[in-house]
Amino acid sequence: MDTATFFLYLLIILITARFLAEVAARLGAPAVIGELAAGVILGPSLLGWIEPSESIRFLAEIGILLLLFEVGLDTDVRKLMATGRSSVVVAMAGFVLPFLLGLALAELVFDLPTLVSLFLGGALTATSIGITMRVLIDLKQQGSREGQIVLGAAVLDDVLGVVLLALLYEFSVAGGINLANTAKVLIFILLFFFLAPIAARLISGLIRHVDNSSDLPGLIPTAMVSLVLFFAWLAHAMGAPELLGGFAAGLALSRRFFLPFGIALRTQPEFSMRIEAQMRPIIQLFTPIFFVTVGLSLNLKEVDWGSPFIWSFFLLFLLAAVLGKFGGALLIPESWRRRIIVGIAMVPRGEVGLIFAELGRTAGIFDNAVYAGLIMVIAFTTLVPPFLLKLLYRDLETQKPLTGSGSRKDGS
Amino acid sequence: MDTATFFLYLLIILITARFLAEVAARLGAPAVIGELAAGVILGPSLLGWIEPSESIRFLAEIGILLLLFEVGLDTDVRKLMATGRSSVVVAMAGFVLPFLLGLALAELVFDLPTLVSLFLGGALTATSIGITMRVLIDLKQQGSREGQIVLGAAVLDDVLGVVLLALLYEFSVAGGINLANTAKVLIFILLFFFLAPIAARLISGLIRHVDNSSDLPGLIPTAMVSLVLFFAWLAHAMGAPELLGGFAAGLALSRRFFLPFGIALRTQPEFSMRIEAQMRPIIQLFTPIFFVTVGLSLNLKEVDWGSPFIWSFFLLFLLAAVLGKFGGALLIPESWRRRIIVGIAMVPRGEVGLIFAELGRTAGIFDNAVYAGLIMVIAFTTLVPPFLLKLLYRDLETQKPLTGSGSRKDGS
Repeated sequence: MDTATFFLYLLIILITARFLAEVAARLGAPAVIGELAAGVILGPSLLGWIEPSESIRFLAEIGILLLLFEVGLDTDVRKLMATGRSSVVVAMAGFVLPFLLGLALAELVFDLPTLVSLFLGGALTATSIGITMRVLIDLKQQGSREGQIVLGAAVLDDVLGVVLLALLYEFSVAGGINLANTAKVLIFILLFFFLAPIAARLISGLIRHVDNSSDLPGLIPTAMVSLVLFFAWLAHAMGAPELLGGFAAGLALSRRFFLPFGIALRTQPEFSMRIEAQMRPIIQLFTPIFFVTVGLSLNLKEVDWGSPFIWSFFLLFLLAAVLGKFGGALLIPESWRRRIIVGIAMVPRGEVGLIFAELGRTAGIFDNAVYAGLIMVIAFTTLVPPFLLKLLYRDLETQKPLTGSGSRKDGS
Repeated sequence: MDTATFFLYLLIILITARFLAEVAARLGAPAVIGELAAGVILGPSLLGWIEPSESIRFLAEIGILLLLFEVGLDTDVRKLMATGRSSVVVAMAGFVLPFLLGLALAELVFDLPTLVSLFLGGALTATSIGITMRVLIDLKQQGSREGQIVLGAAVLDDVLGVVLLALLYEFSVAGGINLANTAKVLIFILLFFFLAPIAARLISGLIRHVDNSSDLPGLIPTAMVSLVLFFAWLAHAMGAPELLGGFAAGLALSRRFFLPFGIALRTQPEFSMRIEAQMRPIIQLFTPIFFVTVGLSLNLKEVDWGSPFIWSFFLLFLLAAVLGKFGGALLIPESWRRRIIVGIAMVPRGEVGLIFAELGRTAGIFDNAVYAGLIMVIAFTTLVPPFLLKLLYRDLETQKPLTGSGSRKDGS
């Protein structure tokens, strides 16, 4: 691809995403739906103008990392730990139930081979942290109690998903599973999760020191993006999802960061606010690319719309996908309203589901029909919940005032 | 390349560039030298850790586009036109003289074939608008009279360089030149140059309108980057250098934009300032990647340091490269101080010289020795002038107060 073509593709992605997000917002729909739709329209499903080349995918990956960085920045560790138990319940139930339901459906109803059934169960366990958090951010609800529960659960789900993916991959290649390996991976991820924010906090102290003594402009954008990239790379190196790196870096720099066990590391609200102000335009530039890429990857042309298998597969697995995620939400001691919001927020499979689907296809485990059915389930679970969440919160808005963190319109 | 490797490469590039820029600045050297050095150290010349993959190159191209966008934003069209005649003289003389000197040296002293000589002459005509403007920006002298002369001359030089490159390429492939084609290219470029800022201005009015009526955050970063990409693509499509697109977009959005022939399009200082504030972190993030990539492309391992040919080639062509660019500066009616600054500022060949060198090599026109000698000339002319400019301005600073646009340190 030559440079001018790359410029053109990026341009088309940015403009279409923004235009459709604007249209979506004016129609009362979530903005992220516009960005996903841009991908579906520009991609192989419809126009086929753009295929996600390596360079575009890299930009998209930076986009989701930065979104998670923003989520981390906005997170209050104290609140996250207060809702921790609920998050664990929601994550665990939302992981085990869809897996078992998917496995049972595939084995018993559709009579599929065990390996196919395992991968289908795995694909249903996914939670798209990107879609979910983006919708909550747009609704300014990422700081609400249910927002924190969902955030914690989605992060845990991502960890569980990576472990499961590694296990299934090992099983499909070697025919068996090495539990010692799995335990090692889990320990590394836990280590990363507890040590990364502390390390990031220490590094950020260094960055602040350089910032105070440097005359060169531009330290914060370079240093923050480097920090996010470093922790993403480190997470990957330790076997954890890369997203966790972005989240850990954001968490460490948030205004409301504190360390467990009373270790004192002064928070620096003024520095955090400068970071937020300067990172916001960068985050806003990159994140839409990610959601467009998710849309680009949903190839709906693969679906044979006339096949009865597809439709029964779609409906039954959709049911499993939704009920499985609601199971956990029903177990937590919250109001019905919160339970419903948490349940819906956990449903989107998004990019994580797509990773399972792609792996299953390229490894020759899914045939075209199963793959197409799964893509339909992923598309539906990804595209519908944002609408429902928006409707639910709009309903609430008429009952009580919003408790969000105020207008986030640019600048500030 | 997998995503984690890409993250790691980008991380290494960003951190090394920043670290060496900081070191350079503390030693009193220009920051851009630190970024170029980062490329030389990380690249094939020394460590060989990083080769500029397609994705890194694309990010670098966005970086130089955004730098030119910033240059455009800071440009006062009225001033640029006031110094226009001097710019034309500097550009023309700085184009014709190095070409003739290089051609004569190659033909008469080194007895090289005509095609080789033509390409060597061509390579000497280049002016690195990136290096030159970056140094002036860092010294806060981009708005000075000599800064405007250099800017205009460098832009014109870029246009002339693209036309010459096309001509030489045609000559090397077809053995002849079609003057009608050349005239057409020139007319297109002129058209682009006059119409693009007007079009960009009209589009920016539209963006402002959307910005006023939209509730979604993030319009400015997305819209501005899209605008820059669009004009870069358009410039390319019309046969002009892509950089011109970034410059034209910046020019149109600058606070001091006005249209010729008294066409009234109200300037919007408040909107321009918001654009500057939000675009600055993005520009600061991307531009170092460009300068690192220039350093990565300077493969000094190709040079056989013991060969007498290389040294005589290097010294004579260096002389031609420097004298050729000074010729134009001597012809303008300015003080000696200004003439010397303009002369030095036009010397860096940078990325534009590298394009000639690479084309000559891949087309089999340059053998290894000629290519290596040329790389040495490009490296020297790229790395030394920033030091001289900084020294000259430091000298001046003791004589009179700076006339720059004030501190540009982040935020504001």
